[in-house]
Parts: sequence; C-alpha cells; structure tokens
Amino acid sequence: MQEFIREFVLKEFDHDFGEIPLAALDDAAIVDGIAFTTDSYTVKPLFFPGGDIGVLAVAGTVNDLSVMGAAPVALSCAMIIEEGFSGDELHKIMRSMSATAKKAGVRIVTGDSKVVEKGAADGLFINTSGIGRRSEHLDHNIKKVKSYRGFKFTWPNDSALASGDVIIASGPIGNHGVALLSFREGYGFDTEVRSDAAPLNHMISRALKVGGITAMKDPTRGGVANLLNEWSDKSRIGIKIREEDIPMDDAVVSACEMLGIDPLEIGNEGKALIAVVPEMAQKVLKALKSTSEGRRACVIGEASKSVRGVMMETHTGGKRVVEAPVGDPVPRIC
Amino acid sequence: MQEFIREFVLKEFDHDFGEIPLAALDDAAIVDGIAFTTDSYTVKPLFFPGGDIGVLAVAGTVNDLSVMGAAPVALSCAMIIEEGFSGDELHKIMRSMSATAKKAGVRIVTGDSKVVEKGAADGLFINTSGIGRRSEHLDHNIKKVKSYRGFKFTWPNDSALASGDVIIASGPIGNHGVALLSFREGYGFDTEVRSDAAPLNHMISRALKVGGITAMKDPTRGGVANLLNEWSDKSRIGIKIREEDIPMDDAVVSACEMLGIDPLEIGNEGKALIAVVPEMAQKVLKALKSTSEGRRACVIGEASKSVRGVMMETHTGGKRVVEAPVGDPVPRIC
Repeated sequence: MQEFIREFVLKEFDHDFGEIPLAALDDAAIVDGIAFTTDSYTVKPLFFPGGDIGVLAVAGTVNDLSVMGAAPVALSCAMIIEEGFSGDELHKIMRSMSATAKKAGVRIVTGDSKVVEKGAADGLFINTSGIGRRSEHLDHNIKKVKSYRGFKFTWPNDSALASGDVIIASGPIGNHGVALLSFREGYGFDTEVRSDAAPLNHMISRALKVGGITAMKDPTRGGVANLLNEWSDKSRIGIKIREEDIPMDDAVVSACEMLGIDPLEIGNEGKALIAVVPEMAQKVLKALKSTSEGRRACVIGEASKSVRGVMMETHTGGKRVVEAPVGDPVPRIC
Repeated sequence: MQEFIREFVLKEFDHDFGEIPLAALDDAAIVDGIAFTTDSYTVKPLFFPGGDIGVLAVAGTVNDLSVMGAAPVALSCAMIIEEGFSGDELHKIMRSMSATAKKAGVRIVTGDSKVVEKGAADGLFINTSGIGRRSEHLDHNIKKVKSYRGFKFTWPNDSALASGDVIIASGPIGNHGVALLSFREGYGFDTEVRSDAAPLNHMISRALKVGGITAMKDPTRGGVANLLNEWSDKSRIGIKIREEDIPMDDAVVSACEMLGIDPLEIGNEGKALIAVVPEMAQKVLKALKSTSEGRRACVIGEASKSVRGVMMETHTGGKRVVEAPVGDPVPRIC
C-alpha cells in the first residue's frame, strides 16, 4: 500500500516545488524557507508504557521538523473521535500533548475535531502538522560541512551523505516498538521496556551548534533498517554498520529474539540517526552525550564507497546485508 | 463534544501565541507572519454529486487560509486508509486533489499515509493542513479599511466587524449539505442539487484588491447561522440579515422544506461571507460578481448596533432570531 501511494503521489502531485520538495520524500518539505510536515497517529492502544498517543503526536511531528534542521514554531492538532469516546481519556491525551509541547517549546496554534459514529473509527486518531524555521545554528552547521566538503548545501537531508560520513545513533533502539507490541499482545516485556517517545529538538539544536551534520532522520516506521536504506538509496552511497556498536537494552534484545523480530526493523519515537563529516564526529557525539535524550549516543558506522547498500558486520564477525523491511512487522505502533 | 473539546483546548493548550492565536478560534492561526490551518475530512460517502473527498480536502483548507487574507502556499495531505480500500478509488481521489490544487495554484508538498485494519476506519479519512503568506493585496485592503474606520488592523478576522459593515454572500447557500444528504439518504434531490465545493482563493484575492474587507469566513459546519453568530459574538455587534436577499436555489429551498432542515444551518464548501466597510461594499460586490465563483454574490445584511445577536427579517416581514445550531443537522458532510 505504501509503495502504491508513493507511486501515485509522485505521479499525481506537483512534486518538485520547494527547496526540499515532495519528491525528496524526506521528513519535512521546505517551501519558501518554511519547514512543513504532517503525520497521522493511529497507535493502538492509545495509552502504553512510557507514553500515549498525545506524546507521540507532538514528539513525532517536532522530530520530523528538527531532523531537517528546522526549529519547530507551531503545530496543528486535528482529532477524529469515535462517538462515545471517553471524555476523561480525551482530556488526559490533551494534557499529554500540552505537556510534550511545553517540553519542546512549541505551541499548538490551530486545530479541528470531527466526531464520527460508533464503529467508523477506532477510538481516536490524531493528526499533527508542524511548521518550522531554519534553526539558528543551521548556517553555522552548513559552513562547517562546507569547510571539509566544499559543496553547496542548504538543509541537512537524505541525499546529502558522502563517503566517510560517520553515523551516530542518539540512543538505544527498539524500545518503542517492543513496548507497544508487548503491552498490546500481553507478552509482559513491558514491565521492563518503555516507549522512548520524546521530542528531540533541544538535543538536535545542541548538535547543530557544533556543526558538520549532513543528514538526520528519526527511525520511526521501518526502523533503523528502513532509514539506512533510504539514506543509501537517496545519497547513492553504501553504509557500513557494526552490530556490536548499535545501542540496545538487554530487555529489547531478549524480546526481539523471543518474538522473532529484527530490532533494526521496529519503529522508535525518540531517537535520531545523525550523519556527520568525520572531522566533526567526536565533537557532535560529545554534544549529544551532554543532553538527557542523547546521553547514550554512540557511533554505529559510516557511509562508505566500498560497499553497496547497507552492510552490517555481525557480532560473530560475519557480514549481513540489511534490507528495508517489506511489510510492517509491528502495525499501528504510531 | 465540540464544546467539550473547545473548553479543553483553551484550558490545556497555550492559546495566546501568534498574531491570530488559537484562542481566536478563527479559520487559521497567524504565527510569525504565516497563516496555518488544519482540517480532517470524514465525509460520507466519499463520492457525491459535484465532488468527492479530494475536492473537499483541498478546497476546504485553501478556503480557510484565503478567508484570513492569506495566499495559500502549500498543503499537506495525510490519509488514514482502511485495509482493503479500493486502489482505483484512491487514485481517483488523488487525481481530484491534484486537479483542485492546480485550480487553486497551490502545491501539495508533504504527506503521510497510515493503513489500519478492516473495521478500524470507515474507508478513508484525509487530513489537509495548509500554510499561507499575507496576500499581496492585504496591505491595500487594510489601508482602505483604515481610511474609513481609523483603527489598527492587521488581518481580516472574526472580531473585526463594526456597526454598518455590509455583509455579502458570495453565492447561493445550502447546496453542499443538501446534495450530500439527499444522495446519501436516497431522497433524489441530488439530480438537481450538486455540491458547491471549490477553492475560493482567486475570487477572494480579487475582492481584497478592491479593499475595505474587515472579515471573511466560509460557512461550513453549522452553516450561515453558525458563522453569523460567531461574528456577532466575537465582534460584540448585532447582525441584521434579510431572508429574501439570501441567495438560494429553488431545489435547495424545496429540499430543506421537505426534510425539515434550516438551510442557514447546513454546511457549504465553496462559499464565503464577506464583511465590508459600507463605503466599499458595492465595489467589492462588483469585483466578486466578475468572478465565476462569485457571479451570484449579493448583499444579505449588515452589522448593526441596533440589534443584539443575529436577527433575520423574514419573507413575511416578521423578525426571527437566528441562533447557532446546537447539534449538527447533517453529520459527516465534510
């Protein structure tokens, strides 16, 4: 279905408008100096260990703006509510949205609500769209990239990686997907694993201030595997990662083994991968580690001309091609 | 439910941020010089006489920006799709969106799609959010208002009407709601009545170029009755309208009589009410009439200190208070 839509979208819509156009299929479009993005949240259940749909809806859209190098300015909130939905739950979710927005320093400025009859929706769906301006540190970041790389560059984006760029994960991966799946299906891992849903704009701002970042992206749907393949495809560069360097909580590893799920393919909601010119990588890593969201950041690999696609050096010293997941191993987690 | 949400929204969200903040509950927020709005479309059925959900989703959001005095720049498109939804229908809807966007001269630059399992949504829901810049004619419009009115004024809005302002309807009302209801319920009026769904930005731009406009709004959910009450409340001014001057197609009048529906309370998707300082009203009317969307525009009343709330002079010469509708007489028409 995703492929089908993507194909239609690029065929039917006017896809080459803007500095980062629709055709880039990046986390946000950049039009007339404004970063603009949208996401609908259909997570099930609405409340889960570590968060709820309200936290997701605000953090997800803030992060999509932030990874483009934008400072989030404002969000919209549109709700589709099934008739008979609990007023107390709705209020609780709105409080989550409000608290998460405050944490990120972004305002919810416009909204809409539609009530549909019982059975026409599954409780509650939320759409948040967001607008952002160039981060105050973006010019500096770009200048730093240029000083080592020597090419024109206006916004970090999926097509901007070059051989040698160091890839940093901002923290342990897999927590959101495992927490959701475990809680929903009653596997019990949720006593240990909580969703990582959180806005990352402050952490990312710190990294941009150091400079040298060529691309950033949050590994949501399709996880790290999908993200790295998008980077590799769009930047036409191979990517090497080392399994032992990918930060993961023990409980997430066990859960994935027991459930037969590849942790690289599950969605995260409070993590970013950051590609940095090699000369600046250690400084950016240090800046990330100085923030609460990035304290467990580490280098997981690099872009490299010497491989095709995404290649992982496994724990046992072997090599494994990391492909983009075909289906969605864990549906309705965001 | 609407009231309940409104109350929560104003309590929980940071509602006083921006030039036109959330608290204004206007058609779009204005933040940092950017107009920003969102709407989810849950219309049922997806295809109806005169349009489909795709036309609605683009026109509705373009119109919400336009009535604030903004020129639409870009739209987002987020779809929630029920598993098994027809690919052909989806493609048809995307072509409608594309055609309507082209008509309006606006681009769809960012999007999202979520597929939910069978039974978790009713076919297809679309959210469009939109961003816009100050219309090139807005400064001129404001200057014209100021020359007769003498007060500071930056964007047309619901709170800006003053006694004497002439109220113009851009064309016949009730068509969208009647077409939808009739088609859905099989009443058969749809052979004559078609939805009016259309983008109004070009028409509105022509009117702003003339100048003198204090407020504009599209009578969607809750119709003209709701719109006029919002203006009256927010501008703290009475509004007088004359029933015989309200443009309505005969088929709409008959349908409303037979179905026991007040045509003032049904939603429209290609009409605007426009309030103009009296000195400029005839010129604005003439400009509207020169456009295809506004060719049947006419003056329907005026703001007046001499009444409280919204008062209608009826066909029979009597007076009737027009109240904001309590419920939604025709659910899921947008």
